Amino acid sequence: LRERGAEDRRALTELLDSSYVCHLGVVVDGAPRVMPTAFGVDYDGPDRGGTLYLHGSVAARSLVAAGGVDVCVTVTQLDGLVLARSAFHHSMNYRSAVIHGRARRVDDEQERETALNAIVDHIVPGRSAELRSNTKRELAATLVLALPLYDASVKSRSGPPQDDDQDVLAGRVWAGVVPVKTEVGPAITAGDVGDGVGVPWTVENVLTR
Amino acid sequence: LRERGAEDRRALTELLDSSYVCHLGVVVDGAPRVMPTAFGVDYDGPDRGGTLYLHGSVAARSLVAAGGVDVCVTVTQLDGLVLARSAFHHSMNYRSAVIHGRARRVDDEQERETALNAIVDHIVPGRSAELRSNTKRELAATLVLALPLYDASVKSRSGPPQDDDQDVLAGRVWAGVVPVKTEVGPAITAGDVGDGVGVPWTVENVLTR
Repeated sequence: LRERGAEDRRALTELLDSSYVCHLGVVVDGAPRVMPTAFGVDYDGPDRGGTLYLHGSVAARSLVAAGGVDVCVTVTQLDGLVLARSAFHHSMNYRSAVIHGRARRVDDEQERETALNAIVDHIVPGRSAELRSNTKRELAATLVLALPLYDASVKSRSGPPQDDDQDVLAGRVWAGVVPVKTEVGPAITAGDVGDGVGVPWTVENVLTR
Repeated sequence: LRERGAEDRRALTELLDSSYVCHLGVVVDGAPRVMPTAFGVDYDGPDRGGTLYLHGSVAARSLVAAGGVDVCVTVTQLDGLVLARSAFHHSMNYRSAVIHGRARRVDDEQERETALNAIVDHIVPGRSAELRSNTKRELAATLVLALPLYDASVKSRSGPPQDDDQDVLAGRVWAGVVPVKTEVGPAITAGDVGDGVGVPWTVENVLTR
C-alpha cells in the first residue's frame, strides 16, 4: 500500500508539473460552475499534502465564491484516441487528477507572494526571478486561493483498445490508437521588445523539454 | 447584436468540433465534482440550441447524479502561454465554452443511438458507420445524457502580452507568446489487427486535418 501511495504521488506531481490549465469546480447558488484557470503548486506548502494555488481577479464571482467552500480541481491530459472495433469500447488514453477540498483564501502577504511566484513559475520555471515585484495595486486586485493536495485521486488509461473476442475474430474493422500530444513553441517575441533582448533560457527550457 | 450572436455560435461550434474532452461539473451531496469525459454534438438535436451528448457507465455515480439536475460543461483549448514583463500580466491564450443547463437522461432508443453515434463520430467523423451496432447488453450498461447548447458562453484570449507602459519602457525583460498546439498521430495499429486491414480514410482524415 505504501508503494502504491508513492506511485500515485509521483503520477500526481508529474501530471500537475506538465499541465498548464486546471478546471475549477465550485457551487454557486446551488448550481455547478466549471472554469479553466492557471495554477501553481507548492509541494511543501502549508496545507496537508502540499498546496495547489489558484488566482484571479477579486471581481471574478466564481473565484470569490470558491473561498472557504468545497471545491474540485481537475487536471486532465489527453494522451490518445482509442479506436476499437465497437462503439462501446471506444475510449481515450488519458491521465487525470481530481482534487477535492476546501479552498482557503490566502491573506498572508508572504504566502501570497509565494503563491503568485508559484503560478508564474508553473508556466515557465524560473520566470518569477526575471520579473519586477508585484505592486500594491496589483496585489490588491488579485485573489489567491489555496487547496490542499491531500485528497487527490489520479486515474489513467493507456494502451491499445480492449475489444471483444468475437469482434477481433471477425477481423473486419481496423483498431488502434491515435496518439495526442501537446506541442509548444516556437516562441513569438512581442513586437515591442528591443533588439538587444533575447529569449531567456527559462523560456528556451520550456521549448525543449 | 445578431451578427455577434452568429459569430459566437461559429466560435462555439469550431471549439466543440475540434475538442476531444470536456469537463462535466455536477453537484453531489452539496459539493462540486468535475470529471473529464468525451462528448458528442447534434447541432440539430431536440434541445434548445442543439444538443450536447455525454455517456458513461450506468455505475458511474457522478454521471448518474447529473441526470435531471443542473450541470456545467466546459470545453477548453489552450492556444499559448502569454509571458509578460510582470507577473500580473502573465496570461494564457485560450478558447473556452461554458455550457450551463439541466441534463436530461436520454431513454428514447432512437435518440440513444443518435447520441452514441455522435460521440463516436466526434472522435473520428464517419467512424460509427464502420462499426457493428451496439448490443442490447452494451446499451443497458450505458447512460446517455443530453444538455441543451442554448446557454453557452464562449470566451477567448489571443495575441501578445499587454504590458504596462513603464515595463515596456524599462526594456529589460523579454516578453512574448509560446504557442501551444495539440498534435495527433501517427496512428498505432493494434497488435491483433490482421495484415489485410489498413488504416481507414476516416482515421487518415483525423491525422491530416
